[in-house]
Amino acid sequence: MRLTSRQEQIIELVKENQPITSEQIASKLKVTRATLRPDLAILTMSGILDAKPKVGYIYANKPSYSMLYDYLNETKVEKVMTKAILLNEDEWVYDGIVTLFLNDTGTLYVENDGKLVGAVSRKDFLKTAMGGSDLHKIPLGIIMTRMPNIVYTTKEQSVYEAAKKIIEHEIDSLPVIDNSSDSDGFRVIGKISKTNITKILIDLCEKK
Amino acid sequence: MRLTSRQEQIIELVKENQPITSEQIASKLKVTRATLRPDLAILTMSGILDAKPKVGYIYANKPSYSMLYDYLNETKVEKVMTKAILLNEDEWVYDGIVTLFLNDTGTLYVENDGKLVGAVSRKDFLKTAMGGSDLHKIPLGIIMTRMPNIVYTTKEQSVYEAAKKIIEHEIDSLPVIDNSSDSDGFRVIGKISKTNITKILIDLCEKK
Repeated sequence: MRLTSRQEQIIELVKENQPITSEQIASKLKVTRATLRPDLAILTMSGILDAKPKVGYIYANKPSYSMLYDYLNETKVEKVMTKAILLNEDEWVYDGIVTLFLNDTGTLYVENDGKLVGAVSRKDFLKTAMGGSDLHKIPLGIIMTRMPNIVYTTKEQSVYEAAKKIIEHEIDSLPVIDNSSDSDGFRVIGKISKTNITKILIDLCEKK
Repeated sequence: MRLTSRQEQIIELVKENQPITSEQIASKLKVTRATLRPDLAILTMSGILDAKPKVGYIYANKPSYSMLYDYLNETKVEKVMTKAILLNEDEWVYDGIVTLFLNDTGTLYVENDGKLVGAVSRKDFLKTAMGGSDLHKIPLGIIMTRMPNIVYTTKEQSVYEAAKKIIEHEIDSLPVIDNSSDSDGFRVIGKISKTNITKILIDLCEKK
């Protein structure tokens, strides 16, 4: 929220003189207590100041971010997801790595009959490549993480839930699954990554 | 911010009757306009309502995230950075990959005489490994991205600036440099990644 210059003045006064009563603030600013009331209400409700009964105001600087939580909890994954790169499990590891670079992505998803069956990350590819095997002779199906061991999200889940899964499972991205009744289940329709989430934070700061 | 039940009531009234004047809201809630003033100030300042002169209040629901911006702009990288994994440029690519896995990290930083000289990412390692060369015979210095082509941050920069650099340069993490006068410049003291930033978002939502 944008503060008025008087609210900024009040914050400075409290920082320098805390604890300070509303009478003292009013006298220093040469206004009445009634004039100050809305400002003090805004500053305490937003968590910038804390009002200690019979003591006065102190500088708390603990803004409540429940507005941020509401936004992330109401914004669905569908709105921020990006394209998932999909391959079949009988494709070669070599071709998988080339696809990874050409699409500048971190994880490939593996489909079979239009259903998610696996995921291969840069780490999986690196392990295989450092082993010295012929990458033209190993299919993705051998090195991929296989369902049901893949953490995924759905287009209806919130960005907050998806971000929590990414952090809790220490992964870079989640495939987004369409599990609506008309879909056959586990069709990959996108992905959400730490990049998407970092971008949201920047966009919110820039009020886009 | 947490809203009071009166503020919630005001929002509902505005949603149903917009545009609505403060007189009309006061009469519906059976309070005086003076009583409503702080509530209306909070609701407009927070971007939930919009006040149209000579028309009344409308429901805007454009929360301002400048509080989030202030937090990210005031929080220094130093406070959220994690450990950087450092190697020397004459170490073998093979050992670099092993170090990467053992530390479960995405990027290694390369030092020479205590100064940042390079960075090697999973992508760099993967390119080298898929080439089929003997990884025990290639030093990191050959495959690393070399200064001055490394985007970095300092401990004094804000998390917001660091996050912007990560997104703009499409990279996973930044080394954190100590460039204070008593340091010899370019000493790596940590790193900040998209994981750190995603965690900040979750922590803010959970008000940690």
